[in-house]
Amino acid sequence: MNKPTSQSEFETPKVTTGPLPGSRRVYTSPKAGPALKVPHREIDLHPTANEPPVRVYDTSGPYSDPAATIDVETGLPRHRLAWYKDRQLTEYEGRPLSPLDNGGATGKYLAREFPATHKPLKGTDGQPVTQYEFARAGIITPEMVYVAERENLGRKTAVEGAAERLADGESFGAEIPEHVTPEFVRDEIARGRAIIPANINHPELEPMIIGRNFLTKINANIGNSAVASSVEEEVDKMVWSIRWGGDTVMDLSTGKNIHNTREWILRNSPVPIGTVPIYQALEKVNGIAEDLTWEVFRDTLIEQAEQGVDYFTIHAGVRLAYVPLTADRVTGIVSRGGSIMAKWCLAHHTESFLYTHFEEICDIMRAYDVSFSLGDGLRPGSIADANDRAQFAELETLGELTKIAWAKGCQVMIEGPGHVAMHKIKANMDKQLKECHEAPFYTLGPLTTDIAPGYDHITSGIGAAMIGWFGCAMLCYVTPKEHLGLPDRDDVKVGVITYKIAAHAGDLAKGHPAAKIRDDALSRARFEFRWEDQFNLALDPETARDFHDKTLPKEAHKVAHFCSMCGPKFCSMEITREIRDRFGSARAPNAVDAGMAEKAAEFREKGGEIYLSEDGKVREPID
Amino acid sequence: MNKPTSQSEFETPKVTTGPLPGSRRVYTSPKAGPALKVPHREIDLHPTANEPPVRVYDTSGPYSDPAATIDVETGLPRHRLAWYKDRQLTEYEGRPLSPLDNGGATGKYLAREFPATHKPLKGTDGQPVTQYEFARAGIITPEMVYVAERENLGRKTAVEGAAERLADGESFGAEIPEHVTPEFVRDEIARGRAIIPANINHPELEPMIIGRNFLTKINANIGNSAVASSVEEEVDKMVWSIRWGGDTVMDLSTGKNIHNTREWILRNSPVPIGTVPIYQALEKVNGIAEDLTWEVFRDTLIEQAEQGVDYFTIHAGVRLAYVPLTADRVTGIVSRGGSIMAKWCLAHHTESFLYTHFEEICDIMRAYDVSFSLGDGLRPGSIADANDRAQFAELETLGELTKIAWAKGCQVMIEGPGHVAMHKIKANMDKQLKECHEAPFYTLGPLTTDIAPGYDHITSGIGAAMIGWFGCAMLCYVTPKEHLGLPDRDDVKVGVITYKIAAHAGDLAKGHPAAKIRDDALSRARFEFRWEDQFNLALDPETARDFHDKTLPKEAHKVAHFCSMCGPKFCSMEITREIRDRFGSARAPNAVDAGMAEKAAEFREKGGEIYLSEDGKVREPID
Repeated sequence: MNKPTSQSEFETPKVTTGPLPGSRRVYTSPKAGPALKVPHREIDLHPTANEPPVRVYDTSGPYSDPAATIDVETGLPRHRLAWYKDRQLTEYEGRPLSPLDNGGATGKYLAREFPATHKPLKGTDGQPVTQYEFARAGIITPEMVYVAERENLGRKTAVEGAAERLADGESFGAEIPEHVTPEFVRDEIARGRAIIPANINHPELEPMIIGRNFLTKINANIGNSAVASSVEEEVDKMVWSIRWGGDTVMDLSTGKNIHNTREWILRNSPVPIGTVPIYQALEKVNGIAEDLTWEVFRDTLIEQAEQGVDYFTIHAGVRLAYVPLTADRVTGIVSRGGSIMAKWCLAHHTESFLYTHFEEICDIMRAYDVSFSLGDGLRPGSIADANDRAQFAELETLGELTKIAWAKGCQVMIEGPGHVAMHKIKANMDKQLKECHEAPFYTLGPLTTDIAPGYDHITSGIGAAMIGWFGCAMLCYVTPKEHLGLPDRDDVKVGVITYKIAAHAGDLAKGHPAAKIRDDALSRARFEFRWEDQFNLALDPETARDFHDKTLPKEAHKVAHFCSMCGPKFCSMEITREIRDRFGSARAPNAVDAGMAEKAAEFREKGGEIYLSEDGKVREPID
Repeated sequence: MNKPTSQSEFETPKVTTGPLPGSRRVYTSPKAGPALKVPHREIDLHPTANEPPVRVYDTSGPYSDPAATIDVETGLPRHRLAWYKDRQLTEYEGRPLSPLDNGGATGKYLAREFPATHKPLKGTDGQPVTQYEFARAGIITPEMVYVAERENLGRKTAVEGAAERLADGESFGAEIPEHVTPEFVRDEIARGRAIIPANINHPELEPMIIGRNFLTKINANIGNSAVASSVEEEVDKMVWSIRWGGDTVMDLSTGKNIHNTREWILRNSPVPIGTVPIYQALEKVNGIAEDLTWEVFRDTLIEQAEQGVDYFTIHAGVRLAYVPLTADRVTGIVSRGGSIMAKWCLAHHTESFLYTHFEEICDIMRAYDVSFSLGDGLRPGSIADANDRAQFAELETLGELTKIAWAKGCQVMIEGPGHVAMHKIKANMDKQLKECHEAPFYTLGPLTTDIAPGYDHITSGIGAAMIGWFGCAMLCYVTPKEHLGLPDRDDVKVGVITYKIAAHAGDLAKGHPAAKIRDDALSRARFEFRWEDQFNLALDPETARDFHDKTLPKEAHKVAHFCSMCGPKFCSMEITREIRDRFGSARAPNAVDAGMAEKAAEFREKGGEIYLSEDGKVREPID
């Protein structure tokens, strides 16, 4: 139920802060931009590892930095403003707020406005404003320098073995570099193969890049709802989802208070925020799809662009002529945006205003550098409907629109399905690359079967890992509640972690030069029984520790160099040490080789009981 | 901790009984065996669906049949004994029970013996006893007739559209038939491409088949442990895991009471039970690997074969010469069985007794029709070690041993990895098919990344779905506790459901003629807002319902033909109905076409409030 709120009752959103276990947020500065502070996370290892900290990509923003002052009422520092000094941007009064922007909510039902107000900026005609325009003009922006440093995790040169790892992988024609340079970033953006979603009115952003020659990214959906959540909850969910690895967040809010909710989210978000503007436009016409007009939609685009939304889902590929193609489907049109536009087209029996006004949409989005996420309104909603004519007809139109958007100076990515059995996934990726001229693909899953509601993070995680490997640039998460209800905080976390797994599995398979570093560090920790390191290197250290403690709760179990697998009489690590001693090993000396024999003897004498029950036996979970 | 037990204190294991929601266990009899009662599960749909019940594969045994009398103290009916009348089997006294079989447990630490005793049966030399021998002799056994009927879900002819679906799939050279006949089963077994694990001393079994031209199967691991569980818990876990879809169960018990625990499990198990005999053999030599002897191992094989274990993991491919190949690995030898044998080989500096005595092992296993599961003792324990020389050298040896086992009349499957990045999975499948002459492959996952302990059901579910698609016949589940602790009941369920997803996704992608039926039925239910049908058709109806109720708990929400996605003012189903009305549809009339307009109008009048909060708006979870 909607929580009654008023100016006085509205609470300051509470968000989760502090570092993740065993790690620190660190910053590096790129050579090409010494003033930039690019964030990463460093996980410290136990001294016996003889290894430097493991650096990983960090999406969590200042929230995980104890040195940062977090005040949700103020918002994050607007650090990008300093990067605009050479840009021809105009500050202006902006569109006045209308009561309809918040669905006409009043009194206790109206969410409090964000305390600070900022006048919007806008680009100038004839002067580059989007990252695409700068790239085409041969100009490297601070955003480009920033994302290059970020993709490299601050490394100044290629990682050792980069060429070998690339050669060992299978990238299906991607052109992943050994080391990401700002020039490479510029080239990829200029070719339309990558985007940096970064509205000039979202200066709180820590820029990131989406493209198949970069690390695979994931998106988390949040959104307030009259039925189920409040502004506070959504701000908390945004911070929570980026804490666990969300690279971008889509605000799918509906109902009342859309404008104010979005403002709180944007001002506190270090990651790009995406929206589906047709949702808010529909609210402005009281939910009646046929009452939508270009004017209402246009007004909504400007409203959201001025606030700083970084990318818009625009379902401009749902053309009138394609609507009948869905008649024989098992699940018709399942995209909400697609349904809205199909309804509108049918009611007026005329071409979609998103399609007929597409160039004007481009002009608006270009002026603020809002990136396109061309929506797949006709995506399949079931295994039965995958790869059908309706879906592919729309995809072909999205390719046509991509070229128009590029000609207008806009950044573009393309949304994809949905529900697709495994053997039809690659065809989606291949067709998207061909039809959409290598613009980045951004897919929902796909779900590889329809029979597991309650587990659709898994049915879709399978498809997401595969399409990520095949070349999909960003994976939109699916939570366990998909098809059934609204995700809560736990669902958001499970969705994010599942999709981090999918994205990383894809990067590994492509042969990304640095992806395997974390796997290897964790595997060494596992093999050497450095339990704390294994937890801390995990995508979800809290759950890993919690699961371990459920079986072996004692603190001593996490320092002992033995585990529940084999017990003190029989240790596979000791056997490997013996093998290495006897046959020699090219592996660098580490805890196993250096002092393990001694430690093992000590353990047998002193600590041998810690895993034992009365009968002196332990077990392993699996063989 | 070990729960103290004694004859008087020992409780009768409590198991979960009763049908799954909205469904019934049904039986059909094949033409070729009218006396056989082959089980399936039928899910009833809402009358508005105008659809017959959906029949699905049922592994749950008599436990889900309210008409069955369940008495764990008696065990399941020994129905297969009636099938043996033409076989030359000898009943004999059997090996006497030794205190060492239960690890020397006494008094309150000794688990109670299973109340009933049965004399073991044994095959006769020169007379066929194994399914392989019968198949090679051109004889179709009741087991073969039974599994054919089971694979067909009782259909007497091919499903409509079978040829089209097969043509639409990608099976990588599998030869999946449109309809499974007993002759096809016999041929596949005779070629070594499929097995029916069915020890003659496990007459409680409901036979099932493992082979890449049949439905993909999954295995669940259980096992008592001195540290963490009791006999009662393990019997409950066995019943629980098959309730959710486990096709076979491996009992990986260690510690004391191995013999008695296994007897309780076997006598109550309708699914094949697998074990790793070297675990118990190691217990018999007090956990000292180098003290193992062929005689102790041989004694253990006979002990377990007499009890009725259906398949044995035998790590006979861990040859002395391969041990040094693991010296440079990141994670050495991670298979417990592999480590035990490597230790033994190193201690004695001699070839593994499993390898040197392989023909004698075959003779023992043949006499009871225990199937081989040739263990991958050198499987990779990390992404870094995948597809290395140690792993593949062992696989080549397993291929050599497969031929020997076949020559001896035994059924054989081959175990596989482990930890393998996505781009290296297919090479595993292809090499296994080639080296092992198409004997069924049975893999653990594989895990596609090492960085997510706590979520390894997902990291491995991705790999399992892929290798299942590529041709793997059975997938060994991984639970969320993998690498961290011992799975509890909830973990077992999550592991089983995840692997049912993987197996089914693989079947769909192969183009299995009947797999898509369930997806389509669920998708229709979803599209028509038949919530109860959607829950009941789900792999886990309880979780699906629970998740739905967390957002919309009222009973009315489950009968209303609207959902939280779009709300009463805007319904994508209505739009599709409109599209179908206007443009015509080849789809058979159903609830959408027949009466939906009326229902929708009624809902708007009477029930339009049920999803609304004060402001009359609802939302969708995702676009």
